Amino acid sequence: MTEPKRQLNLNIGLNTTGYVAKSWPYRTGNRHEITDPAYYRRLTEIAHRGRFDAVFFSDHPALVTDPDGRPFHTLDPLTLSGAIAAQVPDIGFVATCTTTYNSPYDLARRAQTVDLISGGRLIINVVASFNPNVAANFGNAPLPPRAERYAKASEFLDVAKKLWASWDPRRENEVPDGRFWDATSARTIDHHGTFFDVRGPLNVPRGPQGHPVLAQAGASEWGLDLAARHGEIIYANILSHAPGHAFGRHVRDRAVAFGRDPSAIRVVPGFVPIIAESRAEALRKHELWSGGGSEDGLIARFVAENGVDPHRFDPDAILAPEQFIPDPDRLQALGMTLGLVDLLRHEKLTARQAVRRSEGHHRLVLGTPEDIADALIEFWADGAVDGYTIQPPRAPDDIVMFVDKVIPILQDRGVFRREYDAGTVRDRYRLPYPE
Amino acid sequence: MTEPKRQLNLNIGLNTTGYVAKSWPYRTGNRHEITDPAYYRRLTEIAHRGRFDAVFFSDHPALVTDPDGRPFHTLDPLTLSGAIAAQVPDIGFVATCTTTYNSPYDLARRAQTVDLISGGRLIINVVASFNPNVAANFGNAPLPPRAERYAKASEFLDVAKKLWASWDPRRENEVPDGRFWDATSARTIDHHGTFFDVRGPLNVPRGPQGHPVLAQAGASEWGLDLAARHGEIIYANILSHAPGHAFGRHVRDRAVAFGRDPSAIRVVPGFVPIIAESRAEALRKHELWSGGGSEDGLIARFVAENGVDPHRFDPDAILAPEQFIPDPDRLQALGMTLGLVDLLRHEKLTARQAVRRSEGHHRLVLGTPEDIADALIEFWADGAVDGYTIQPPRAPDDIVMFVDKVIPILQDRGVFRREYDAGTVRDRYRLPYPE
Repeated sequence: MTEPKRQLNLNIGLNTTGYVAKSWPYRTGNRHEITDPAYYRRLTEIAHRGRFDAVFFSDHPALVTDPDGRPFHTLDPLTLSGAIAAQVPDIGFVATCTTTYNSPYDLARRAQTVDLISGGRLIINVVASFNPNVAANFGNAPLPPRAERYAKASEFLDVAKKLWASWDPRRENEVPDGRFWDATSARTIDHHGTFFDVRGPLNVPRGPQGHPVLAQAGASEWGLDLAARHGEIIYANILSHAPGHAFGRHVRDRAVAFGRDPSAIRVVPGFVPIIAESRAEALRKHELWSGGGSEDGLIARFVAENGVDPHRFDPDAILAPEQFIPDPDRLQALGMTLGLVDLLRHEKLTARQAVRRSEGHHRLVLGTPEDIADALIEFWADGAVDGYTIQPPRAPDDIVMFVDKVIPILQDRGVFRREYDAGTVRDRYRLPYPE
Repeated sequence: MTEPKRQLNLNIGLNTTGYVAKSWPYRTGNRHEITDPAYYRRLTEIAHRGRFDAVFFSDHPALVTDPDGRPFHTLDPLTLSGAIAAQVPDIGFVATCTTTYNSPYDLARRAQTVDLISGGRLIINVVASFNPNVAANFGNAPLPPRAERYAKASEFLDVAKKLWASWDPRRENEVPDGRFWDATSARTIDHHGTFFDVRGPLNVPRGPQGHPVLAQAGASEWGLDLAARHGEIIYANILSHAPGHAFGRHVRDRAVAFGRDPSAIRVVPGFVPIIAESRAEALRKHELWSGGGSEDGLIARFVAENGVDPHRFDPDAILAPEQFIPDPDRLQALGMTLGLVDLLRHEKLTARQAVRRSEGHHRLVLGTPEDIADALIEFWADGAVDGYTIQPPRAPDDIVMFVDKVIPILQDRGVFRREYDAGTVRDRYRLPYPE
């Protein structure tokens, strides 16, 4: 058997009205569909037409009630993934789950159930929740310190992996007459750790992928450690080429230090495409969808988001990266803001230029379908990334546009599948099976 | 609008090889299908053909590894219900969930997600887990005392109900230009109780049923209290007619004491049918499927299960009910064993007779399809029960047989639907909508 040809891996984010918060006035559809499971089924069907590896549901278990915003996370991702997997074939599902507010037994069981329902199409995106709004829904205890949340996340996944291997019908010997099964195929795990005591075995057997693929958004030191220990698909924000290479090397080196095979890691960062007939039109869409209405509006947002003094700010002066190093004590997804620092360390950019390089902390590319395809292939071709998680500014509109305009170019260039083949998501990502 | 005619409500239990543990050698199918979601879809489709109100997944989140037994609970019931609801129309789903080892926010969210996926077909069966095997999978702390588990269950449901009402699009006023939504439709609940602190609002809105229908197995004092406070569908074991009446009165009186409308409660006990061409054949099937192989085997099992001294036991002597009152400190589903005591208080029975009256603690009826139909209608006709949860001894075989042989009789007698009508499970059970 020959090694399958390396292809671009592409996931696509599905969240209510799309990734960009203020783009909703420019989208098609009504506001009530954002809580309708049929809407997400329809988006998944469009993504399936585009032959995406997987749809990606990010998540916080909390409702942000900003009257000027819009709900971004509603239906439970794992439950929804199971239901849509029962209706739409082939495509995978990335379901975000918190390790801070779940029990390993319960989550391992539900995830393995969805992996069985989908025939091996589940990826779980493990997050150590950082949001005080989430904490308030789960007991109101102060959010544990970041180091503790990540230590708990790592032990959580140790337990989950033991559970996923605990009942393995492949261990079944011949079953004697008068017995239903060989119960020795199921073994207790007897885990006793810092955070969890779990006996097992799991009451769902080993699944088609061994266990669901584990995705992780690693960028902070803690996130990187978790990614290196457990992550198979790493979601990150990589805004330029050299930092992309550095990030991949860094996480793979750490994986080696933890005794893992570095080839068992795929880097699939976020990517926001704004697709238009021309670059000028894409720039204009960006100005409108961001809510600022103009380039000055984009710069004003940059100033506000980064806590810069607007009176002493020259949007045409080269930015100093040191100014943007995030405070590690801030309660936010720390890794998200590191992309900008890395970008400014490798390229000399003004604020006017920088605002066109990222949106919602992810790599932003503005232009024609060809421009988008070029940008996707550029970092992938030499291995800086293995693929991308496309974050469409508007849903469903930019999913449709990406599928109709960009995917055919990628297919014509021979870097992306025209049809799904049989096999699990693990196979498509060329990831090894556990054990 | 005229009140819809009272009809029999029928759920059917779906658990691996069927309800009776040792009946599996007499079933059709292979052992690996018990962990295959497609198997449960197929069983649900058979139940749909029979026009059942709902399929019922009982549950313990633990794998019993008895080499002489068979796994009874595997795939996660709520996740599986969502996936099958996406594939099979009309029929409802009873998903068992523990209030001891879940967070109210997470469970309320997942349940409301499934109610939206199914278009108002979810019933959640709330259990305060009693099983040390379950406790060992969730932290290994000693199982809390029964009173505490039930107090926690009740507060859990208080919180869940507040969450299910916390985001209600019906409260939305006209949304001004430039805004996506009226955020005042979502309100925090700010619950601070003995067991839970939860801010809310839930990030899934009010569903088609207001909230999922709440089922509860009430029979112990604690279970009865929980049923009277929160239960809409009460699952119980009622082995004879007069105790059935007494049970319904008892739970409805208690509901009144808690300020509830007693007409908003449906009693739907378990019922094990053994269907054959003749009563003699049904008796023989019972002997085989129970694993005893003979009437003496049934009696031996009765003796063992009830801790009776076999040397001083006369199977043809009238049994004294006092002998069977369960020890409330035993770690088991206390209410399950009360049915036998009630039966013996109302009917003078020998062990030889009693073993033919219940199976797995539920009412057992042995006979022809007409006998089964008569028995179902008997308690229902005068309101002792509102319907039954059929527990097929073997799956799929006895589900098929019930659908093909018993359902048409019930339909011909005008007590059971021939077709589904539109509407939610709440409508079919004639239960009021919350608020």
